[in-house]
Amino acid sequence: MTMIRIFVTGGTFDKTYDEIKGQLSFGETHLPEMLRLGRSHVEVGIRTLMMIDSLDMTDVDRALIVRNCQQCAESCIVITHGTDTMVDTAAALARGVAGKTVVLTGAMIPYAFGSSDGLFNLGSALSLVQVLPPGVYVAMNGRYFEWNKVRKNRETGVFEPIL
Amino acid sequence: MTMIRIFVTGGTFDKTYDEIKGQLSFGETHLPEMLRLGRSHVEVGIRTLMMIDSLDMTDVDRALIVRNCQQCAESCIVITHGTDTMVDTAAALARGVAGKTVVLTGAMIPYAFGSSDGLFNLGSALSLVQVLPPGVYVAMNGRYFEWNKVRKNRETGVFEPIL
Amino acid sequence: MTMIRIFVTGGTFDKTYDEIKGQLSFGETHLPEMLRLGRSHVEVGIRTLMMIDSLDMTDVDRALIVRNCQQCAESCIVITHGTDTMVDTAAALARGVAGKTVVLTGAMIPYAFGSSDGLFNLGSALSLVQVLPPGVYVAMNGRYFEWNKVRKNRETGVFEPIL
Amino acid sequence: MTMIRIFVTGGTFDKTYDEIKGQLSFGETHLPEMLRLGRSHVEVGIRTLMMIDSLDMTDVDRALIVRNCQQCAESCIVITHGTDTMVDTAAALARGVAGKTVVLTGAMIPYAFGSSDGLFNLGSALSLVQVLPPGVYVAMNGRYFEWNKVRKNRETGVFEPIL
Repeated sequence: MTMIRIFVTGGTFDKTYDEIKGQLSFGETHLPEMLRLGRSHVEVGIRTLMMIDSLDMTDVDRALIVRNCQQCAESCIVITHGTDTMVDTAAALARGVAGKTVVLTGAMIPYAFGSSDGLFNLGSALSLVQVLPPGVYVAMNGRYFEWNKVRKNRETGVFEPIL
Repeated sequence: MTMIRIFVTGGTFDKTYDEIKGQLSFGETHLPEMLRLGRSHVEVGIRTLMMIDSLDMTDVDRALIVRNCQQCAESCIVITHGTDTMVDTAAALARGVAGKTVVLTGAMIPYAFGSSDGLFNLGSALSLVQVLPPGVYVAMNGRYFEWNKVRKNRETGVFEPIL
Repeated sequence: MTMIRIFVTGGTFDKTYDEIKGQLSFGETHLPEMLRLGRSHVEVGIRTLMMIDSLDMTDVDRALIVRNCQQCAESCIVITHGTDTMVDTAAALARGVAGKTVVLTGAMIPYAFGSSDGLFNLGSALSLVQVLPPGVYVAMNGRYFEWNKVRKNRETGVFEPIL
Repeated sequence: MTMIRIFVTGGTFDKTYDEIKGQLSFGETHLPEMLRLGRSHVEVGIRTLMMIDSLDMTDVDRALIVRNCQQCAESCIVITHGTDTMVDTAAALARGVAGKTVVLTGAMIPYAFGSSDGLFNLGSALSLVQVLPPGVYVAMNGRYFEWNKVRKNRETGVFEPIL
């Protein structure tokens, strides 16, 4: 069985509703709960690197993500990430990480909402990372893309191939 | 983009609660709703072959599934199936279907329940079928197995490798 | 604040899905979880008297429910109950319990399903028991009925007034 | 059967997640869907008066709500409302509406989230309005309060009696 490293960076995936403030906010990651729900029996290690909206992600944050991917023992890595700058982080990873399979995924609707796409995407990313050759990929909408062949269409919210 | 054929056969995945009779029953498949929830943009064609508990599946039913996999135009096929005899159907498919990638998946909890593993498994199966080489596979619990290297542990409900 | 006694007897309300057996079954009651979800701050005491399908309820079971309602300290009582024989139990309570407000409620869909009416009915029953004068009532479908002016329509699953 | 008027004003109850903007927003009310889920068979008429956060509610908005309660044909009225200024609107209604039973309710978590208290509160409010004598009430947390005997505790999010 492949041992998979999961790095959590926040994004819509992990937004929750703060009922005192009446706003969306970040708390603890939902990853362990989601893996239980999926009855996942893949051996994974989860580490939260940051818990931010990807529009707020800086070059320093990206460097931290790259360094963690370089230095971790595992060669199969899933990263949960906000969708708005997922492709930017994928590019930074492609420049900095060699010999590992890295799959970025996220969600359009927070997992804490009943109607989230998060569980579907997590199943997708965890499966792809076990099969794809070394490289950096984005897994969204039931599809996967090499890091430099994808963009997020900001009007539809859908990840599309760059032709 | 890969065109994927989905064959529905029933199983826990698609069980619903009949509120008049107070029993579990089968109605229409939840696949289209699940693909919408997952914001899937993979091109798929869905066909319901049967809607039964896999403990009730006969050799005639399995022959029908095999024939549909042989005759369909697509070379990537996902089959939703009850977990109890999923491995038996995988074996029948391995004997009868060549040159195609077939991934069987299912659920331990009906999708209609809030706490289902179905969406996770569907994301997993739809991704694997796009990447794995021709052959017959079972995708459950975040893992995938070649058809002859897996069994369902009936006490834990978990799919395990045959060593 | 009124102190309310809740007696749990089972019924669809509390059915869960046994993922090993692939059947509906009874486990622990969902009442505490439902009250947390509803952010209820009413002071309640919960006791499980039985955990059965109301079609299996015997006269001995009903006598037990009546005795518990007679002997408990509280004068406001909510009973969760299967819908099929809810009206029969209400009649037994009307014969045996005086000077207390007893509200029976249940669900058409198990709470463990995402699409349950259970939380709506619980909010309804807990509110009615604080306001209605002594007597025995059925609270279903957003309405309430005196025990002898209601029946369940078995074809539609809806509780109707007896004219 | 009592005919009940429901006025929708927005609040957390009806917030949804805008997946393109990644923010909470207001769309159509969820009331009809919630009544279907609760299998409600109470005769109701729903009218959306506004769809706003109650922190943004002005005196002009409150005057509109009061006028609608005065002029509608029904004497039983439920109002869905943001929790932050629900008590202020209740006071305006108490000054302006006579001879009708008005119950305000809301939610701490949006209905669109799986973990909402909205369905519980709706069951509560719809039941209370059928039973309580004319007056203005707040129904939250499984309890009900006369309009001038309640406040929202902003630290805990719980509605409390004013002693």
